[in-house]
Amino acid sequence: MLKTDAVVFNGRLNFIKDYEIDDIKPDYALIKPVLLGICNTDEEITKGYMGFRGVLGHEFTGIVEDVNGSGETRAKFIGKRVTGGINLGCNACLNCLSGMERHCKNRQTLGIYNKDGCFSRKFTLPVSNLLLVPDNVSDETAVFIEPLAAAYEILEQVHIKPLDKVLILGDGKLGLCISLIFSSLNIDFILIGKHENKLEAAKKMGANIKHFSEISSFENESFDIVIEATGSTGGFETAVSMVRPRGILVLKSTIAAKEGLNLAKIVVNEITIIGSRCGRFEPVMRLMEKGKIDTAPLISSIVPFEDALYAFELNRKKESIKILLKP
Amino acid sequence: MLKTDAVVFNGRLNFIKDYEIDDIKPDYALIKPVLLGICNTDEEITKGYMGFRGVLGHEFTGIVEDVNGSGETRAKFIGKRVTGGINLGCNACLNCLSGMERHCKNRQTLGIYNKDGCFSRKFTLPVSNLLLVPDNVSDETAVFIEPLAAAYEILEQVHIKPLDKVLILGDGKLGLCISLIFSSLNIDFILIGKHENKLEAAKKMGANIKHFSEISSFENESFDIVIEATGSTGGFETAVSMVRPRGILVLKSTIAAKEGLNLAKIVVNEITIIGSRCGRFEPVMRLMEKGKIDTAPLISSIVPFEDALYAFELNRKKESIKILLKP
Repeated sequence: MLKTDAVVFNGRLNFIKDYEIDDIKPDYALIKPVLLGICNTDEEITKGYMGFRGVLGHEFTGIVEDVNGSGETRAKFIGKRVTGGINLGCNACLNCLSGMERHCKNRQTLGIYNKDGCFSRKFTLPVSNLLLVPDNVSDETAVFIEPLAAAYEILEQVHIKPLDKVLILGDGKLGLCISLIFSSLNIDFILIGKHENKLEAAKKMGANIKHFSEISSFENESFDIVIEATGSTGGFETAVSMVRPRGILVLKSTIAAKEGLNLAKIVVNEITIIGSRCGRFEPVMRLMEKGKIDTAPLISSIVPFEDALYAFELNRKKESIKILLKP
Repeated sequence: MLKTDAVVFNGRLNFIKDYEIDDIKPDYALIKPVLLGICNTDEEITKGYMGFRGVLGHEFTGIVEDVNGSGETRAKFIGKRVTGGINLGCNACLNCLSGMERHCKNRQTLGIYNKDGCFSRKFTLPVSNLLLVPDNVSDETAVFIEPLAAAYEILEQVHIKPLDKVLILGDGKLGLCISLIFSSLNIDFILIGKHENKLEAAKKMGANIKHFSEISSFENESFDIVIEATGSTGGFETAVSMVRPRGILVLKSTIAAKEGLNLAKIVVNEITIIGSRCGRFEPVMRLMEKGKIDTAPLISSIVPFEDALYAFELNRKKESIKILLKP
């Protein structure tokens, strides 16, 4: 049994020394993270999302310390910088066999469902989930691959045409990651948000920005594609009101509505709503390797790993964008 | 000013004699209905939907009595049996010019929005909305063209593949009209409902039927395409639970949820939701002309027009399917 310092949610958030984690199973790697990212999903888990208990965290750049596998696999990975996919499929079902392990019914998800996460001094992950980080991609860039892949997933699901009117609602981490991907792909879009510093960051990344208070009614039902990234019921209803008849609303944030949602307008305007979650890492890594991803405007603080609880506090502040942990 | 008996909603439902309706505007026809259909939207309007006041009704077969137009148009339509599209566009906007007047922002809708409906002894409609009814299509068949076109609209929006697992949720008028269209197009599907007589009607129309109480958990997340036609929040949540990851949920009924809806599963399973409303009449008329549409199992009663209020009472009964009015 391996032991390590870890950020654990067990009903409350703790930094635990000598926490026991799994041994390295066959075809798994042991990874020593060098940089970690806090996601709002981590925060949601501390409020009960997914009923998860265990080590948090699913965003990382790390170095492979050991591999339980063939000599060839060990040679390929040990000592190398990697990042990795967060969904662990069964490798036997139709979804897994078609490269959709992120929809495997029996999947585990790193730090989210049935699998200890990466917020520790070391953790394990199947070798098949690993992706080597090219030398010219920094730790600070590579650590964003998971949220940027979630942003890129929109392109996997929706055909965004060159002249489409595109709107991103929300200037949180999600909205900004989507801005970064869209800008890098020459998609023209408006981002609407509420926070001066985040709108400023979006502008640096190439977004046309607008404050929520500036929305005027003539923009109602005028966008071909609206991305909902606010995570609030109000944001969802604003999105529904701004997408044109027969337009597309991409739902990126998980909304568990407390109030009643009115779905009648979706039928009357024949809107298409597309739920969108995790994406594949490869296309994002291609962008990173080409030097087209600058994550600097997204980083609010880099906090020493042992101060993780403080980092979570920082993450809760309205003005924070991405908080990174440095082990 | 023309006067006629009419079924009017003016805060309450009334049968009014000598009700004043519009004169025949240029390029409009005056139609004498021979058969009328009650839709649940009519019932919803009496509960406040769309804030409509005026003559109800949008499903009809009728005979053209007069046309305010050219000699050619008059010759083409006067004395002929017709049915007609219910959306009156502005004929100037991009939607109208691309055949999408049903999404025109300034549209009127027969008996639903800013336009008196067809539940009267005579009513007017633009000539451009009319469709001639072929001699071999009965009044009882033609009167269903609007709800069947709304069902056919699904095929305009979704590519249903020959081996897709398709589920229709709900055995009301909507679910049964969709069943009739799907069967006529050789789509294999299951219809789940709650009413013995309606399930029996669906079976006659070629549906594989199942009672709600028979749903088993192994069918969860197993359908490629689920059509929500129950009109209830519970139906929407059942639909979300039965569609497979990355599958399609077609929302046919307008749901104004009172309870909180949980949209998280739509994101996690990356479900596509497609709102679907009115459709074009032409493809349905092609089916009717080929004798492929038997509406007999859908007709519960044909009530004399002057007993319209009684017909609305009948329409509210759980076991009723379609109630027709005969002027």
